[in-house]
Amino acid sequence: MKLNRKDILGIQELPVEEINLILDTADSFSEISTREIKKVPTLRGKTVISLFYEPSTRTRTSFEIAGKRLSADMISISSLTSSVAKGETLIDTAKNLEAMNPDVIVIRHGCAGTPHLLAGILKPSVINAGDGAHEHPTQALLDLMTIRSKRGRIAGLKVAIVGDIAHSRVARSNIHGLKKMGARVSVAGPATMLPRGIEKMGVAAHTRIEEAIGDADIIMMLRIQTEREKQNIFPSLREYSRHFSLNNGNIGLARKDVLIMHPGPMNRGVEISPDLADGSHSIILDQVTNGVAVRMALLYLLTGGTP
Amino acid sequence: MKLNRKDILGIQELPVEEINLILDTADSFSEISTREIKKVPTLRGKTVISLFYEPSTRTRTSFEIAGKRLSADMISISSLTSSVAKGETLIDTAKNLEAMNPDVIVIRHGCAGTPHLLAGILKPSVINAGDGAHEHPTQALLDLMTIRSKRGRIAGLKVAIVGDIAHSRVARSNIHGLKKMGARVSVAGPATMLPRGIEKMGVAAHTRIEEAIGDADIIMMLRIQTEREKQNIFPSLREYSRHFSLNNGNIGLARKDVLIMHPGPMNRGVEISPDLADGSHSIILDQVTNGVAVRMALLYLLTGGTP
Amino acid sequence: MKLNRKDILGIQELPVEEINLILDTADSFSEISTREIKKVPTLRGKTVISLFYEPSTRTRTSFEIAGKRLSADMISISSLTSSVAKGETLIDTAKNLEAMNPDVIVIRHGCAGTPHLLAGILKPSVINAGDGAHEHPTQALLDLMTIRSKRGRIAGLKVAIVGDIAHSRVARSNIHGLKKMGARVSVAGPATMLPRGIEKMGVAAHTRIEEAIGDADIIMMLRIQTEREKQNIFPSLREYSRHFSLNNGNIGLARKDVLIMHPGPMNRGVEISPDLADGSHSIILDQVTNGVAVRMALLYLLTGGTP
Repeated sequence: MKLNRKDILGIQELPVEEINLILDTADSFSEISTREIKKVPTLRGKTVISLFYEPSTRTRTSFEIAGKRLSADMISISSLTSSVAKGETLIDTAKNLEAMNPDVIVIRHGCAGTPHLLAGILKPSVINAGDGAHEHPTQALLDLMTIRSKRGRIAGLKVAIVGDIAHSRVARSNIHGLKKMGARVSVAGPATMLPRGIEKMGVAAHTRIEEAIGDADIIMMLRIQTEREKQNIFPSLREYSRHFSLNNGNIGLARKDVLIMHPGPMNRGVEISPDLADGSHSIILDQVTNGVAVRMALLYLLTGGTP
Repeated sequence: MKLNRKDILGIQELPVEEINLILDTADSFSEISTREIKKVPTLRGKTVISLFYEPSTRTRTSFEIAGKRLSADMISISSLTSSVAKGETLIDTAKNLEAMNPDVIVIRHGCAGTPHLLAGILKPSVINAGDGAHEHPTQALLDLMTIRSKRGRIAGLKVAIVGDIAHSRVARSNIHGLKKMGARVSVAGPATMLPRGIEKMGVAAHTRIEEAIGDADIIMMLRIQTEREKQNIFPSLREYSRHFSLNNGNIGLARKDVLIMHPGPMNRGVEISPDLADGSHSIILDQVTNGVAVRMALLYLLTGGTP
Repeated sequence: MKLNRKDILGIQELPVEEINLILDTADSFSEISTREIKKVPTLRGKTVISLFYEPSTRTRTSFEIAGKRLSADMISISSLTSSVAKGETLIDTAKNLEAMNPDVIVIRHGCAGTPHLLAGILKPSVINAGDGAHEHPTQALLDLMTIRSKRGRIAGLKVAIVGDIAHSRVARSNIHGLKKMGARVSVAGPATMLPRGIEKMGVAAHTRIEEAIGDADIIMMLRIQTEREKQNIFPSLREYSRHFSLNNGNIGLARKDVLIMHPGPMNRGVEISPDLADGSHSIILDQVTNGVAVRMALLYLLTGGTP
């Protein structure tokens, strides 16, 4: 089976078989990063450009390591050091990059839909590395991979997602992915952070964390974007933390073997207590490790590889 | 035949035979970027440092891709993240880099003559990637390559260059190159943007775009640097655009098969109308594609390669 | 003999045999950078991440070139373009990078002790590329290598270090290294720039440059950090320069064959006169060349290589 598409834009449009294909491929690639010589010649002579309009360490580095371990030529462009300042349109920048014959363009942009716009215009594959509050599909794929590898399955699990659901592309992509793979999903957050009509996505929505995490197999804590405090979406960090952090006081509501996830970067002591972040339930760093494998799988499959 | 020089500093000092050598080599390299595996081991073990004191996406990325497709080790230094802020002289920075045994240093700098200064001091080859308003030889070479590949020749063609001639290193390098290759060149711009004595370069100078583009085979539109508006070099962008943009109203003055070029980044709707930028006469993206091939050729020839 | 440690954190804890091992290995690696093909496959498939929280050209580039010449995959993260701004703790950033399975993490940080903190937590090797005013061990190693290769030995030489001793990690690391290798060390600087109890490190401390450099075999001039002027550590640059610069007026106090060193970047005309910086006594650029070799040696030895 080959991946039946040119681009990875979101989980919403990805059928279950392709998700499984990606996860299976990622599973098999994950071994490479544990070898003495962490490099295979698979993508030798392929050019991958990452174009980040928002700062990032984790995702950009993960793609760069993934590509280099596959021997691809990796080119990194950040809006800080580029001619973006010179007033060129995004489409012109992208068409210019396309003219240099890359195989894949990885893009992160603050505006939802940007990767889709480019994918429709460009010949190379486009991978969405996060578009506004819309989707972050590689994050959801690495989350699915992590759950599957830890629990052996996704179907039937109860997954709670807690935080600023309305503004989180991680939440959106994960809800799509988890529902497709058969999980039950509940979300919790302050009323101002729950998107209207969220129930239509097939999730149970709560305004109390306790309701969402009850009997959960998996709890995904979202990063609270502290800059939103100023926008009056919530009264104060302390207030938010008191009501919506995961801590030793409420973790007992979940299943005994609950797994705790976080896409990072974490605000320790705000959305999650430090001891839970570092404790035995946490699989936060497994997520990061699997991120490299998922991105290797995507780069491989999009450039024509078969598992 | 080998390239008879250590550095590429400007088109002014480049004899016709060497220009032809570079263009021929670039022609033969351009095929590599269309292969399934876009990589050859030619420059394995060579070190190329790019040192950019001005922001750039296009040129920096083009060099990086060119070098990586030849298997060179590419090191990128931008003044934003470097110790330039610490008050070291440019020459000391360059001598320090030289001490690390690079084969080629690619430099862009806001001051005219900087690459020449370094070339006289340093053992590695120096490529001028743009020095102030002086020269941008790799841009001119890729423009010549593009014209030659589209028209089969350069000699005898009429080429119009329109915009801020006085402050454009692209214009200067192209005038030198086009004249050497036997083209007829006319330039147009507001009187404040035409350098005094420009006719001595062998070009016809006009203050109306219509006069310059009449019967042109090629029209090169220059980027208007919008920050100059504040310096009162022209009254307003709208005014500039009304008199000097290329659009459907004046394109008919050129030859029917006229080709439109632009070094990028474009100000759509200012110096060029969007439909012409994207239309069938435009070879703007071919320029970008050829940029990679020209830079591959230069890196190859400067490190001792023979065609 | 193998290097008996996971990390390179400082010269203070490095025994003489390991210093010699590193210098010997660096000596043998230095030839690679003079070859036609400056690349060996030794570290193929190893991942080296450099994480710089302070700007740097010299050190960052030196590590990058060193790693690439050994065929390692080099990943460069600077705090300017990373998620450091998002408020993640340094330890979380480091643990995240660790989860991507790098072999070596090279870190520069403004806070003394940061590399030691990370080394105690992380499985990959950690190399200190400068921590606050504490240590800069790779600088000291390249300085020792340079002295040894120029003089044939270190033991018994008289080395003078002049400048802001109190705030210089270069001075601290060099004092440790030089004393271990049997050199006699004298330091000079304004009283405000001499740390209290410096004599306990086994050096002679002076408040006049003339006293320190008398009969010196080697003079190391430190970069004066001009921003300290505002902190009233010294009255003015001119004042500082008049009393503590190395120039033709005082160089005659040293041995006839004295060698002049500087870790860069230099403030010409402040701590060192330009003619001495460029003169026949100067081995400043040899230091830079040897920096690549020392870093190749460290990357090699830390990833399990044997000389």
